[in-house]
Amino acid sequence: MKNLATYYVFDRANTALSKVIKPIPPLQDGEILVNIRYTTLCGSDLHTYCGLRNEPRPTILGHEIVGVIAAISPDHSGLDTRGNQLHIGDLITWTVFSSDPNSVNYQPDIPQKNDKIYKYGHRQITEADDLHGGLATHIILRPHTCIRVLPKDISPAVAATINCAVATSAGALRLAGTITKKNIHVAGIGLLGLVSIAMCKEMGAKSIIASDINPARLELAKKFGATATIDLRETTSSTALQATVIDRFIDMSGSPEAMELGIETLALHGNAVFVGAVFKQRATGIDAEKVIRKMLTIKGLHNYNYTDFSAAVDFIIENWQKYPFESLIERDFPLAEVNEAISYALTHKPIRAGLFINPSTEQL
Amino acid sequence: MKNLATYYVFDRANTALSKVIKPIPPLQDGEILVNIRYTTLCGSDLHTYCGLRNEPRPTILGHEIVGVIAAISPDHSGLDTRGNQLHIGDLITWTVFSSDPNSVNYQPDIPQKNDKIYKYGHRQITEADDLHGGLATHIILRPHTCIRVLPKDISPAVAATINCAVATSAGALRLAGTITKKNIHVAGIGLLGLVSIAMCKEMGAKSIIASDINPARLELAKKFGATATIDLRETTSSTALQATVIDRFIDMSGSPEAMELGIETLALHGNAVFVGAVFKQRATGIDAEKVIRKMLTIKGLHNYNYTDFSAAVDFIIENWQKYPFESLIERDFPLAEVNEAISYALTHKPIRAGLFINPSTEQL
Repeated sequence: MKNLATYYVFDRANTALSKVIKPIPPLQDGEILVNIRYTTLCGSDLHTYCGLRNEPRPTILGHEIVGVIAAISPDHSGLDTRGNQLHIGDLITWTVFSSDPNSVNYQPDIPQKNDKIYKYGHRQITEADDLHGGLATHIILRPHTCIRVLPKDISPAVAATINCAVATSAGALRLAGTITKKNIHVAGIGLLGLVSIAMCKEMGAKSIIASDINPARLELAKKFGATATIDLRETTSSTALQATVIDRFIDMSGSPEAMELGIETLALHGNAVFVGAVFKQRATGIDAEKVIRKMLTIKGLHNYNYTDFSAAVDFIIENWQKYPFESLIERDFPLAEVNEAISYALTHKPIRAGLFINPSTEQL
Repeated sequence: MKNLATYYVFDRANTALSKVIKPIPPLQDGEILVNIRYTTLCGSDLHTYCGLRNEPRPTILGHEIVGVIAAISPDHSGLDTRGNQLHIGDLITWTVFSSDPNSVNYQPDIPQKNDKIYKYGHRQITEADDLHGGLATHIILRPHTCIRVLPKDISPAVAATINCAVATSAGALRLAGTITKKNIHVAGIGLLGLVSIAMCKEMGAKSIIASDINPARLELAKKFGATATIDLRETTSSTALQATVIDRFIDMSGSPEAMELGIETLALHGNAVFVGAVFKQRATGIDAEKVIRKMLTIKGLHNYNYTDFSAAVDFIIENWQKYPFESLIERDFPLAEVNEAISYALTHKPIRAGLFINPSTEQL
């Protein structure tokens, strides 16, 4: 029966998600109904699951999602963000948020920080408002969600990561400034670190140093374009970084030690972008005199804007087979095994675990 | 005898400067000889004098200088930075550095950070290289020094501050981004803080909060356009800043506590510029999560570029009588009393003490 949706509810930390089956509500003005094809478990989903982040509850986790259009409300323009016609059956990706540009404090360069934001995978389930997370068979895209159609042959597992990890990496590189012919240091080799490295390579970086505390991750970094790797557990890591002229530092690790070292080893007029530290931690110590004399810039990035989203879509369409992106979704599970998937992700710490949604079996 | 110059040599911390009289060397290609009219003692001169900064020695301190053209070498273009003809007797100000644009690592937006920089008031005296500081009757401007002619009626004491305090403040506001209709917080109410406040006012800032630990300085800030003041010694200062939406934070104080509070109380998408902390100090603690979630930017500024210098000249020509700039040079002394001037500055901590140079008495 096509008018039922299944979703899995997160209500308490470290507690199995519970299954809900309910009728799909009629679409409101400007909405689009999507049959979810694939959802990847982002690090923040796992942080929330473990109680390290406070999100509204009960909620449907999962925001790295890809799916096909099932229905378009008559009031929707029927166009994607490029002005192309949307069709039932199109494989699409979309911004993790919908942001109303008519809001009072709307700032066009940071739509993700609008007062009135609707963020998929981060909302409380209410009677009137559900089908907004990725651990489900369906999601309803609200008005002002930026949509792009994807090629039919793209890997759904890779495509699912576009609207969080890939778009955020694109934002980090935008804030970092010129990448071409620059020496780059990326700390924290999770999915965002790997995407950033591959993007820097495609942008013509002169050299790309990857740093982490995990040797296996450093090996992986080389496959995505890192020209050198530094194990941050080694006492020589500071010396190695000091010996290099580093123009850009991108922190995906969220580790105060890594951020301190990254800033400390930036060259004259260098730029740093902090992305990873989206959790409580000790203060990061900055030598203000060095920031001044070396004329450094430090920027924080949370999520991404429309420019970044579009850059991410273009990058993945162009490069998803050029780098081993598919191998990063180390294991996937059917949606019905979502609790096993979470357990696997927490135990094995893969770059990503994924959930594939097969409409013929998942829908009743 | 016109071919002699007098200068005062700094050779040891906390030790009186010693007077030297020597013939003025013939000008080299592209040089300009200037009769100094007025030099103000910058905070960094006093830091060096007290041994808090390491500068090459022996040296001629003083870099906030104004003077009149005494001679122009035939190889000089004879033009100021705007392409206007320079004449003997013109009152001029110039960049604190000369920076050769043909150097290998020259970056046009930070000429002050060129590998080959010639910085007035910061060089070792050698047989072949002197007359490069402000505590002297003469200075020789080297090639690639950016020069602007000043109106004859300008206060020489105010004009002397253009090429350090005023130009650096202009640089800070450039890095801070849009000022018009923004809420500004300026910490550290010395000359740079006061100039920044007046510049923000002229640029149409919505509000300007001045913070310091000195109530007299806070009173002074109001005369330069501050709309509110905060005494950082009071425990309520954090609450007061938290209660305000602050878009821009300019730190002229160099105090880690002030910088921490300034970053902590920045609003969404706010920008901070660090300028004051040009001395050794403890690390400044930054909450990276806030930098990320609020999408803050922190920039360091050391000295200034040509755009800033020109903005500073224009600002002072336009506004030097509109704000009580002259009162900031709280006392001045003839050059012969330079040691008394330093002693006064160290004891009384005026915004500035000045030295006026009268060619008829100073030259032998």
